[in-house]
Amino acid sequence: MTASNNQISNTRVLVAQIPEGVAPNKSHFRTVTVTEDKPELEDGAIFVKNSVLSLDPYIKYDFSSGNEESPVAGFGLGKIVDSKNPAFPVGSTFFGPVRWESYSVLTQDQGLGESINLDAGLDKDLPLSVYNGVLGLSGFTVWDSLKRLGNLKKGETIYISSAAGTLGLLAGQLAKRQGLRVIGSAGSDEKVAYLKNELGFDAAFNYKTQDRRAALTEAAPQGLDIYYDLVFDDTVDIALDLLNPHGRIISVGTLALHQGQEPAAPKNLINILMKQLRYEGYMVYEYFDQWESFWKEVTPLVKNGEIKFAETVIEGELDIVAETYSRFLQGGYKGKVSVKIADL
Amino acid sequence: MTASNNQISNTRVLVAQIPEGVAPNKSHFRTVTVTEDKPELEDGAIFVKNSVLSLDPYIKYDFSSGNEESPVAGFGLGKIVDSKNPAFPVGSTFFGPVRWESYSVLTQDQGLGESINLDAGLDKDLPLSVYNGVLGLSGFTVWDSLKRLGNLKKGETIYISSAAGTLGLLAGQLAKRQGLRVIGSAGSDEKVAYLKNELGFDAAFNYKTQDRRAALTEAAPQGLDIYYDLVFDDTVDIALDLLNPHGRIISVGTLALHQGQEPAAPKNLINILMKQLRYEGYMVYEYFDQWESFWKEVTPLVKNGEIKFAETVIEGELDIVAETYSRFLQGGYKGKVSVKIADL
Repeated sequence: MTASNNQISNTRVLVAQIPEGVAPNKSHFRTVTVTEDKPELEDGAIFVKNSVLSLDPYIKYDFSSGNEESPVAGFGLGKIVDSKNPAFPVGSTFFGPVRWESYSVLTQDQGLGESINLDAGLDKDLPLSVYNGVLGLSGFTVWDSLKRLGNLKKGETIYISSAAGTLGLLAGQLAKRQGLRVIGSAGSDEKVAYLKNELGFDAAFNYKTQDRRAALTEAAPQGLDIYYDLVFDDTVDIALDLLNPHGRIISVGTLALHQGQEPAAPKNLINILMKQLRYEGYMVYEYFDQWESFWKEVTPLVKNGEIKFAETVIEGELDIVAETYSRFLQGGYKGKVSVKIADL
Repeated sequence: MTASNNQISNTRVLVAQIPEGVAPNKSHFRTVTVTEDKPELEDGAIFVKNSVLSLDPYIKYDFSSGNEESPVAGFGLGKIVDSKNPAFPVGSTFFGPVRWESYSVLTQDQGLGESINLDAGLDKDLPLSVYNGVLGLSGFTVWDSLKRLGNLKKGETIYISSAAGTLGLLAGQLAKRQGLRVIGSAGSDEKVAYLKNELGFDAAFNYKTQDRRAALTEAAPQGLDIYYDLVFDDTVDIALDLLNPHGRIISVGTLALHQGQEPAAPKNLINILMKQLRYEGYMVYEYFDQWESFWKEVTPLVKNGEIKFAETVIEGELDIVAETYSRFLQGGYKGKVSVKIADL
């Protein structure tokens, strides 16, 4: 905080290797503050003051191996404070892969392909944190994947696994708006009630307490047309059996792997041929030219409450991030979780 | 053959249940000839004089269970001799699901949805048997599936399993004409040489004597873009690993199942998500409105030799069909196999 004109004070969250089989907890992290020279940027690089850090399950898989401490890498929102990249001028608002630190350098080779200049869509009436959720990468992923791969048709039935998560919530609401019958599953009765009562899902069930095949069969009397897969577990087997001819499986997420479960390995793939199914994977990073269309369509719906979202924003200094992440991994928060470490 | 005006002489090949684990041989079949009244057709039904019977691996799965003898059901070509169906007027040439008999009745409910009036495409300079192969259901399946699901792009690499079969031969040639690198596998060195030397495949290998993964990796230095799957065995695993981002698996055939092998059950489906692959099944029966486009495009190429095909036509009475089928199942013939039992 006390630093000369050419220096900054940078606080970083460092992590050493997490012992195998142990979830990261507060003791695995260390927060340090260093005073360092402002970086000399190479062509194409940017320098970001981080404001909102995104907590996501996959982050723990990126912890470096070995004993050397390294800064934690995740996604975040911030303001560009220095730039040699015309797409990200100084003063613009940034979303992309940053580290858990006060300031981050990003180069052309490192993450700018997964970054967005938010200025074209930023609505000052909404909290910045929504750009880490329903109007951010999560929301865009859902909106674009359904549009690109879903071929949604009124009257069809869609099933969404992990429906109470950030992606699932939006997928269900967008499908509902297009006239589909929407079925979701979630891991608690409270979430199931939320899907049915607050979000207007046509049916929902608790996958932990109910037999999934029986619950889904009952919830989809006309069969399934789309399985929007956010978990990548053996639910694929059930979907393959229940999908109608020309049904689709849209593979978007791997929550089951983050939870240490076995990945999907269905023995009934013959259904793909017999029912002319389409099983397709979606990754968001090639489609960033569609962000403005997404914001144009979804921002008004979020503002006027037609699309609901769930998020938790924890405010504090960088030293609270480690503890918050441990609690997050234990399921301690609702909706998309962000840590706000500074104003824009 | 001696029958009154209102009667016909109908020879039929009957089969009783085949003992489990035993391939059908001549002794399981019985050929009978009966004189019977010409049928009174219900609305929509047709009466066909069969000319060319198609021998296909799947037929043996349709043999009735129990001890009662029943006529063998397959596909065939013939002439309409009586009709209450305006789409199939008397005198027109027919392809569809018939039984192994001199004359067959087909009703609306039974098989007419899988039938074609060939008159719109019949070229008198070509033998009728090609309409049971390269210009028939097999050829149309390949042409339409590649067009509909393949999204073939010049410079891409396609791999075709069972490439020396009727479907594989045509798939390779059509892909080659569109500028793709074409790789095929087959079960004998003779077939492999045929693919490379006669059909212009860029690479081919013997899947029985070579390690498939190694052979395919070597044959596809730029990786795979399309796996045209005619076998549905564990080759899917290899393809999932070797496919490039946005690659496609087009599932068309199940030869491995006809040969009693284990069906595909890959444990590496995560590639679908990670590489944004598309795994899709194709069945031909919904797309019969495209037959004329197919004939228009492919008939001239077959006539002038730009597209080659392999077929075996055995001529004789119905009593040779059973023995021919046994030999066919043992791999005794080359290319699409037909039995011609009568002139049109």
